[in-house]
Parts: sequence; C-alpha cells; structure tokens
Amino acid sequence: MNSQSMDGSFTLSSELPQVSQLRQALDQRELGRALMELITELYPLCRSLTGNGVRQTLSIIGRNVPLQIHEVPSGTQVFDWNVPKEWNITDAYIKNAKGERVVDFRKSNLHVWGYSIPVRATLSLADLKPHLYTLPEHPDWVPLRTSYYKPDWGFSLSHNQYLSLDDGEYEVCIDSTLADGHLTYGEYYLPGDQPDEVLISTHVCHPSMCNDNLSGIAISCFLARALTESSRRYSYRFLFIPVQIGSITWLARNEAIVPRIKHGLVLTALGDAGFSTYKKSRQGTAEIDRAAVHVLRHSGLPHEVLDFYPHGYDERQYCSPGFNLPVGNLRRAPSGRFPEYHTSADNLQCVKPESLSDSYVKCLDILSILEANKTYQNLNPKCEPQLGKRGLYRMTSDLNGVGKVKELPVLWVLNQSDGMHSLLDIAEMSGFSFDEIKQAADSLTACGLVKVHE
Amino acid sequence: MNSQSMDGSFTLSSELPQVSQLRQALDQRELGRALMELITELYPLCRSLTGNGVRQTLSIIGRNVPLQIHEVPSGTQVFDWNVPKEWNITDAYIKNAKGERVVDFRKSNLHVWGYSIPVRATLSLADLKPHLYTLPEHPDWVPLRTSYYKPDWGFSLSHNQYLSLDDGEYEVCIDSTLADGHLTYGEYYLPGDQPDEVLISTHVCHPSMCNDNLSGIAISCFLARALTESSRRYSYRFLFIPVQIGSITWLARNEAIVPRIKHGLVLTALGDAGFSTYKKSRQGTAEIDRAAVHVLRHSGLPHEVLDFYPHGYDERQYCSPGFNLPVGNLRRAPSGRFPEYHTSADNLQCVKPESLSDSYVKCLDILSILEANKTYQNLNPKCEPQLGKRGLYRMTSDLNGVGKVKELPVLWVLNQSDGMHSLLDIAEMSGFSFDEIKQAADSLTACGLVKVHE
Amino acid sequence: MNSQSMDGSFTLSSELPQVSQLRQALDQRELGRALMELITELYPLCRSLTGNGVRQTLSIIGRNVPLQIHEVPSGTQVFDWNVPKEWNITDAYIKNAKGERVVDFRKSNLHVWGYSIPVRATLSLADLKPHLYTLPEHPDWVPLRTSYYKPDWGFSLSHNQYLSLDDGEYEVCIDSTLADGHLTYGEYYLPGDQPDEVLISTHVCHPSMCNDNLSGIAISCFLARALTESSRRYSYRFLFIPVQIGSITWLARNEAIVPRIKHGLVLTALGDAGFSTYKKSRQGTAEIDRAAVHVLRHSGLPHEVLDFYPHGYDERQYCSPGFNLPVGNLRRAPSGRFPEYHTSADNLQCVKPESLSDSYVKCLDILSILEANKTYQNLNPKCEPQLGKRGLYRMTSDLNGVGKVKELPVLWVLNQSDGMHSLLDIAEMSGFSFDEIKQAADSLTACGLVKVHE
Repeated sequence: MNSQSMDGSFTLSSELPQVSQLRQALDQRELGRALMELITELYPLCRSLTGNGVRQTLSIIGRNVPLQIHEVPSGTQVFDWNVPKEWNITDAYIKNAKGERVVDFRKSNLHVWGYSIPVRATLSLADLKPHLYTLPEHPDWVPLRTSYYKPDWGFSLSHNQYLSLDDGEYEVCIDSTLADGHLTYGEYYLPGDQPDEVLISTHVCHPSMCNDNLSGIAISCFLARALTESSRRYSYRFLFIPVQIGSITWLARNEAIVPRIKHGLVLTALGDAGFSTYKKSRQGTAEIDRAAVHVLRHSGLPHEVLDFYPHGYDERQYCSPGFNLPVGNLRRAPSGRFPEYHTSADNLQCVKPESLSDSYVKCLDILSILEANKTYQNLNPKCEPQLGKRGLYRMTSDLNGVGKVKELPVLWVLNQSDGMHSLLDIAEMSGFSFDEIKQAADSLTACGLVKVHE
Repeated sequence: MNSQSMDGSFTLSSELPQVSQLRQALDQRELGRALMELITELYPLCRSLTGNGVRQTLSIIGRNVPLQIHEVPSGTQVFDWNVPKEWNITDAYIKNAKGERVVDFRKSNLHVWGYSIPVRATLSLADLKPHLYTLPEHPDWVPLRTSYYKPDWGFSLSHNQYLSLDDGEYEVCIDSTLADGHLTYGEYYLPGDQPDEVLISTHVCHPSMCNDNLSGIAISCFLARALTESSRRYSYRFLFIPVQIGSITWLARNEAIVPRIKHGLVLTALGDAGFSTYKKSRQGTAEIDRAAVHVLRHSGLPHEVLDFYPHGYDERQYCSPGFNLPVGNLRRAPSGRFPEYHTSADNLQCVKPESLSDSYVKCLDILSILEANKTYQNLNPKCEPQLGKRGLYRMTSDLNGVGKVKELPVLWVLNQSDGMHSLLDIAEMSGFSFDEIKQAADSLTACGLVKVHE
Repeated sequence: MNSQSMDGSFTLSSELPQVSQLRQALDQRELGRALMELITELYPLCRSLTGNGVRQTLSIIGRNVPLQIHEVPSGTQVFDWNVPKEWNITDAYIKNAKGERVVDFRKSNLHVWGYSIPVRATLSLADLKPHLYTLPEHPDWVPLRTSYYKPDWGFSLSHNQYLSLDDGEYEVCIDSTLADGHLTYGEYYLPGDQPDEVLISTHVCHPSMCNDNLSGIAISCFLARALTESSRRYSYRFLFIPVQIGSITWLARNEAIVPRIKHGLVLTALGDAGFSTYKKSRQGTAEIDRAAVHVLRHSGLPHEVLDFYPHGYDERQYCSPGFNLPVGNLRRAPSGRFPEYHTSADNLQCVKPESLSDSYVKCLDILSILEANKTYQNLNPKCEPQLGKRGLYRMTSDLNGVGKVKELPVLWVLNQSDGMHSLLDIAEMSGFSFDEIKQAADSLTACGLVKVHE
C-alpha cells in the first residue's frame, strides 16, 4: 500500500516506521514542551458546543493535520436530538454602581454561563443572585456552568468576589447571539493497510480549561501527525467534536462506517499530575481494553482501571447499546477527582509536560499493540524445535537458574502459537511485556518457525 | 386478573398494592409484636411429625389464611419412604420412690423423645439410664430427641436433673399411641397473573421451640396474608409441613405441579438475635439466589451467604437431583450455630421481635425483586436519548462531581436494556439497589423510552 | 482381565489390591530406606544423554521391573532434531607441573563437562581458563556443565580449587569418545483394564546427582513395581529417558500411541527437604492437574501449585502444541530453587528418606484418584432415599450439630450423582477428601442407590 504524505507526495508504506518504532526516537522532554506550546496557543479561545471558538480551535489543529471541517445546520435531527442553535459571544460583564466591571468576560470566558442568551439589564443584587454561580468550597475559583438545552443566562464568579458584592444596582450585559447556524467538528481519516478502523475521539467544546480538554486535543493532534508518518495496519479516524452532541451527530451521519470501527479511544484530561486511568468499553474484554490494561500494568507506574459505567464523555454514545463499540476512555485522574475539574483552576499550571508526554507514549504503546497483535502458527508444533542451531538458545552465557533463561519468551510463543492465542494473550499468560513477546515472534518468524495465522 | 379476597368478594388486581409497596406502610415494631403474639400462642403445643399437635397448629394458622388441610394415611408410599404411623401423647413422667414426678411431660413436651412408644414400667436407675438423654455442656437445658424410624422410648432432661437422681426404683410412664393414622400438612395456594409459582415452605413438626420453627411458621403465615392483599405476577404456594417426610410427601403427590415452581424459599429459624443467613439453592445462581443475596448485601447489616450443601431442612428434598428446584433457605444463625438449637432454651426469650420483623421485611424485599425483575428493551438504543426534555436529567441543581449525578440509574437502565439484562443484572453491575434501578425503569417506561422485553 | 506377573504366572485381576489399597500396607520408614538404597547404588555412575552410564542405570532399574531397552542410532531424525552421537568417557584429569591430578574425573564425574570431546594437551593456566567453570557464589561446590550440541570440552571445579591454581603449565586429558552409536532408553508398559494410558516419565541422563534425578528414577521404579502387583483400570507406561531428546525421540517413534495417553506425570527432584510442588499441564484443568492439586491440598502439608510454563523437564515436549498432552510435573522444590541444583552438593545428603517416601505416597494417591474417579448415577434421584433402613444414617450416636453429621459424604454423593459430576468434582465442591467421597460412593453402590454412569 502506498501512503500519501501531507505534502501530496507518495511514500511506500514499507519504508515508513512501524507504530511501535515511533516511540524509540522520542525525546519526551521535548515532546512535553511541544504539547504545552499547542495547549498554550489554544487556551484563550472561548469554545462552546458551537460557534467561532470551535472553528478557531479546529483551524489551529488543522495546521498540524489536514482536518476535514464539517458544518451541520442547527435543527438537524440526529437520533433523539436536534443540533442546537449556534452560540457566539463578544463581550459580557457586570458593572457596579460606579460603572466598574466587577465581573468581566474579557478576563475569563468562564465568567459567562455557556449558551447564555443575550441580556442587557439593570438589576438589584437580590434579583441578580439567581443568575450568579459560585463554588463556596473553592472560594477563589470560577466554576464552569452551561445551559445548553434550557434558555437561561448567568455569570460564574469566585465565591470571594461574590461575597464582596455590595447591595445596589448592577448593570449586566451579555453580548451573545444564539441563533440558527451550525455545529462544527473536525475529522481526519488516515487510511491503513486494512479498512478496519481505530477511532480516536476528543472533545473541543470546553472554554479556557487546559486539562479538560486541551490536553486531549493536543495529544490527539500529535498522534495524528505521527501516525501519518508511519506504516499502519489499521486505518485511523480522528474526531475533534463537541462533547455528546458531537459524537451523536457523527454517529447519526456515519452509520455505514460504524461497523468498520474495531477499536477506539476517547482521549480526555491527559495532562494533570494524577496517574493514568483507563475506563473499559462496555464490552469490557475488547482488544482495546486488554491492550490498554496491559500498557498500564507494564508501565511500572501507579494506574487505575475502571469498569464501564454509562456516564463520562463521548464513550457514553459509542457504547450505547445500539452501537456497543469497543471504545474505552484514557485519562489521568478520573473526572471529578482532580480538584480543578470544571473550574478556572484547570489552567496552564494544572497540566504537566511530563504527564502529557507520558500519556502520549501510553497511547502510542496501546496503538502499537493493536497494530502488532496477531495470532501465529507454530510450524513445528510437535516437540520444541532445536533453537540452538538457529541462535535462539541461551542467549546469555549464564547457565544456572530458571530466572535467567533468556529464551523463555521464544518458548512461550512456540508453545502457544496454535492459532488460538494472540501475542497479547501470550504476553498476559506469560507475564512478559507485549514488546518482549513481539520480539520473540519476530525472531521466530525470521527463522521460519512460526508464521502469522490467517 | 381478578382476585378473590378472603371474604369471598372480588377485587380488581390492578387496585391492589404491588408487593414492593407492602413494606412501605409497615410499622416494624407493631409487626414484631404481632409475630411474637402468634408464636406465643403456638408455643405450648406438642408438635411432632404427625398427630394432633400438628393439627392444632394448622388450625391456628388457618385463622390467618384459608389453609387446605391434607391427611395422608400411614403407610402411603412416597418415593423411597412410607408415611410413618401417627403419634399422639397425653402424658408422661418418671416418678421416684416417693411417687414424685421428677421428670414431667406436663412441664415440657421436650422431656419425652418424639415418637416414643408407650411404656409403663418400674426400673432401677441403672436400667433407666439408657433411656435418658442430657446435654452435659448445657446442664440446665432439656435437649430435643426423636426416634422417628426406630421403635424406642426415652426421656430428655437437664443434666443437673440427671445428676440429682438417686439410685433406686423409678416408675416410668409414657402414655402415647403410635398407630396407623395420618400425616397432616397444610397448603395455601394463591393464584397470580401467571401460573408460574413461588414456593414458600416451612416445617411445623418441632415441639415447644420458638426459633426452630415457630418463627418460620409465623413469618410464612404473615407473608401469606399480606400477599393475599397485593397484586401478584406470580402464583404463590405456602406449605406448612413436617420436616423432610412432609416435603417428600408433597413432592410425591404433586409431581405435575413441580415444573411450575420457578423460585422458592424454605423459611426456618428467623427470629434469633443472629444476623441473616441465606443458603443458596443447588443451582447456585438461580434468580432466587441472586435476589436473596442482593437483599442481604444492600441491607447494610452483617449477613452470611452459604453455598448449597445437601443437609439442613426441606431444601434437601426440593434440591435433590431429580428435582433440582431453585429453592434456597433463609434463616438467621445457621442451624447448629445458635446455642439454644434443639433445646428447651429455644424458648420465647430466644426469639426477638426486631429479628422477626427484620426477617419478614427481607422476605418481602426478596419477593418484590422476583415480582419486578423483568428485562427491558431500550427503544432508542442508538446514543442516549435526550433526558432533559423528559425531565430525567440532573434532578438536582448541583452540577459538580460524578458522585452526585442523579440520572445515573436512568443511564444504567438505558445502557443495559438490550433485552439481555434483567433489572437485577443491572442493579448488580451498577452497584445501585434494585429499588433504585426499578424506579429508573419505571420513569423510562412512563416516557416511552423503554418497554418490557417479551 | 488377567495379569501376567513378573515370573510369568497369571493372576486374576480381581484378586489384586486396588491402587488405593497399596498405600495402606506401607511402612514409610522402610520405604524411604529402600529408595535410598537404590539411589546409593545408582549414584556413582557417569550418566549422560547417551552412553554406557545410561545402560548401566537401566540395567539396575531392570532388576526391579522388566524394562524394554531401546537403542536408537545416532543421526536418526526425530522431528526437528537428530539423535546425537554417543558419548563415553573412561578418565579425565588436569595435572599440574608436579604431575599431580589437581582435577580428577575419578573423584567426581561432574568435573568433566558432559559431551566433552577428547583432548590431550599441555596448556598454560591462561589458555586453560576458558575451559574451566566454577560457581563463585558456592566456592566449595563443583557445578554441572554440558555442551551437548556444540563440540567443546572443559572442566568444572570448585571455585576454591580454581583460586588455588598456580600459573604454569597443566597437562589436560579427557579420555572420551564422541562417535556414532546409540541413544538408549528404557520403557515398561503395563496393561490395564483399558487401553487408555497413564504415562510416567523420568530422566536418566544426569551424572552423580541424587535429587535431580536419582530420586525420580527410584520412585518411578518403585511405582512400576507396585502397580504391577495391583489391579489397574488404566494401562501404565513408564519411560526412563534422557531429558528432552529422550521424550522427543519417544514421541517421534510412537505417534500412534500418543492418543491413548489420558494422564501423565513427569517425576523429577522428589527427594529434597522442600515441600511438594506440582506444575500443571498446558491444559491446566486436566484430570491429572485436578487430582494432583487435590492430593497436595488434602495432604495437610505446605505445597505449591504452578501454572504451566514452557520450560523445565520433559513436560515441555509432551505439552508442545502439536501434542498438548495432559502431563504435569511433580517435584519438591521447583528447579533452581533448591540451592544444590546442578552441583556436586546434590549428593546423598541432599535427599531425605522421608521426602522420598512422602513423594512416593503422593504419587500413589494421585494415581488412586485417577483409577477411581468415575461419575455415578443416583438411582433414586427424587428426594433423598431413606438412609436409615440401609444403615447409612447417623453413623454416630451424637445427634447435635451439623459438624458431626457423619452421613454428609453420602448425602453429597447422592445429591451430585446426576451423571455430570465425577467423584473428584464432588470432593472438590464438598471439601471432603477424595477418599471420603469414594467410600461414600462405595457404600451407596453396595446398597444399590447409585451405580457408575456409563
């Protein structure tokens, strides 16, 4: 298969590195820095389910990968839902009696509730209060609030700011538009040797918050760029969508493609200081689930694996019973468990370059397993073959002790390559890493003792 | 379906409360008091496998529910057994040389071994001793002893009483009859919407002992009365039988009915101060087993679950391999583990009103699950439906934290209602109680998002 | 079936003791002594993959059981391998400048690497060193080393000896032959009531080391002798072979027999002071695996059970995917975990008479289970039969407490004999030992309540 590179030229697939080779050349420190750079550029934009903030975000992503931008008109029916009106905002504030902006959209786009209808009024504090939202337990943080499906308006502010408000009249202004327009999302399809697809989905609808979800956007973007330059068994589809309504819209418009999706990951909140967490797909034992759990277990780092539950991000839609796709969710601290979740404290300090690069590497490791996880056939299944004459026996000179037997991965692959166990199966039962088992399978393939089982 | 109430009038089934609603109106203190009252009334009767004590017991039960009384002639073959002779007793004693009753049946019917043949003799203490039975480890208690299938006679007495017996002659009298007659048992069949049955079986053959098994009799009786006044998906069959030979006799006479039994409980020893114990049916994963375990786990109280073993009460017969019925055993302390087991100390103080009412409520909870445990079909299986427009989203105003997401049971029911998971399945996998999941299913049914899967 | 005894006369099989009865008459102290005696006799011989040491060893075994000796010519192809040349050795030494034998084959055959090619030379210490092998971490022990498949020569010596070597010239002599000849192994086939076979395989190729594997040889030998004198449901095949190449050779020459092998044990290192270890077959849940685990669990002694891994002794070949035979490995300390493994310290003090006899008894217990593990049919499956009239009820007089119910094994066999559970299944689910369950099945068979399920 040939692959068209981003400048339009063609490269022979066989000349490209395998996905598993991508991480070998990685400079993780440089990678973390580059991911932070993209996050920093995206941070100020006022994203929402729809509108120009999303378009600007996709435009920046598009500088990295050739995104296809989709615009779906408001009102379009997508299963049980309708695409909402498009929301845009230019300014918003609360002015006190002295005309001072005591709450100012220009300082933080979190100050205005997402999808606030336009308003311009003068109100007493008492009348204003139902439109104010604070987090008393974190008195310095401005919380995120949205009202996507009920017409409403309001301001979020820190609880300390709220307490400092005097009685008196306030001038409120929300200079927004909520009108028929479009829902915008980006898609990047990267063909591989097979039409079978791996879906990578990330949401682009949260305003100025870094972990949730500029971290997911940046890592998806870098993965897309790296995979473009590697050989691929699978085709890959990257979605940059508004949460829930975005995946619902994509699924509604692409039902014919759904059966091709063999594995998938929803990437969210991958940059905080917490350890890696994988939430299994509804299927629970899908190959993506087993690959992700293997990578986390063999990382040598603390991690958590959660069974599927029908709440969270877009995996809710991919795993609805009418689709039941093998799509899991990789993140660091589970949602709601990093304290800065959905507040102004999810800022540039909340994400760590080393967490971002570590999450990126784990994604690559998971995809490397999917790419290489084949089933082999032992071509000499009766008794062991003579490894010595093929240079596969006792690769070290130390002869004593089973703990030092270097040919064990080779023996495992031979013993279990009966056409019924994949390399990941063999890695799991032997305790070796997928890499060690894959190398053994490669050595055995090279000397003709095993072959891929069709 | 219409239901005939106990006074002969007909009530529309739909007007009756559901089984799950029965416990809401309960006054547990009053219930415990009422159960104690029935136990107190039944306590003095001298019950055995057969005889007038059983008939008197069934007559009192019959004041609560319209029992059908069966009389099976002695000698009737029931599988490998024959119905034994009928035993009745009017008096028994051991008199010392002074003519004093040192052991007196009139003080406790436990003093005479069950099924003692009649005897009238004068014996030396040495000759009497083989006919005396005591419990040295509990020197004040009179132990239960029976000799149903070997003609024998004897007296049980406290070990202290035994030690005080002088050498000398004793006059012994057992004024009993052991002759052809009948085995008597009671049955109450309560039809439901379906011919499929729930079997509730309890033994009525133990003399003056309260936990084993007046507690089981009283709770069965109250359950029967309550279910009579509720709507019922299932038909219910209550058996009040002598242990083992009773269930053997019923099964032998009703083989045609056996296939209708879909769930069953043997109710025994439900009043002691110990925690609730459920012994699984031989099947081990029958719906009754899962329902009972769910109720015990969600009770918030200590409890124990035992795998099936082929010893115990009538579940031995229901779970014999030729029937293998899904019948478990609910009790409190496992038999042999409450110290008063099968002694005179299993008296009115041994049972606690609060244990009785708690056991009753757990029975109701188990039956409520059986009644409501259906499988649903999500009618909008592709992506989530829009819950907000149906009033099912964010039922609280607090937006932060997954722990407070009130629509989670609703999301679980939607996600798992693929026709393959019952509500109990969903409760188990989600960690929610059956009640919470049932309420979610009811809400979703009301707005047409799910329907019962036929 | 009739059985030909070792002197050629015939004995009616029904007159012979069952395998399970063999251990009852055992004097374990005398047994340990006798096993040590055979080991002591075999200890001095210089065994290797091939050669006269193996022939002498088989000749001694042949005094106990009528072995069939097979001689397979060098060069014969056996699957991916060729039978190696035959190696024999008469003398070997390193002499120092004074003509003293500083390393002397006559003191220990471990001093010469197995399969050393003949050599006679005078070398400086520097030139000699690549041909010397020591174990610095055990400076007094002489390690085993072999070079079966690469022409080489060398000496093993204690590290202290090595350190004491002066610079200077050394005369080295290895008076060996490595030439076309034969691979020799012994086989003993013992027919039973069925052609289905139990394979007992042990390796005979290690020079003067007692635990690995004179212990296995001695125990196999005694098992073969005992089984000859017992009735047998299964046929038994004992193999005394050089490790790996021996099992490969046997499998290559006997493919037609392989399907008859229903159970198998590789017996190795059964005499050290460690506790018993069972390594499961590749199948993992084969009957041999379950029987061995049952025996170890019910021994009341510490033990270890290991999942299969494709390294170790001849089970590697029997469990290669082209055969996948239900063959496990019984031993004491897992290989490499007894410190004397593959050194001169694996001497007559390394094996303990009580370990040897205990291992022997465990083998007998495992084989007893295989012989008796049948599935029964309850002939009275509806309700329990009346045990009392058959003398099977309350075998003790104590009536109180479920813990003392003596008929429980009988009830378990009745309850589970539905044609789907073997006696070993019933033992496992009930917690009783196989012996207790077997006795219950025998009692029930005797009174016609169960029969073996065909």
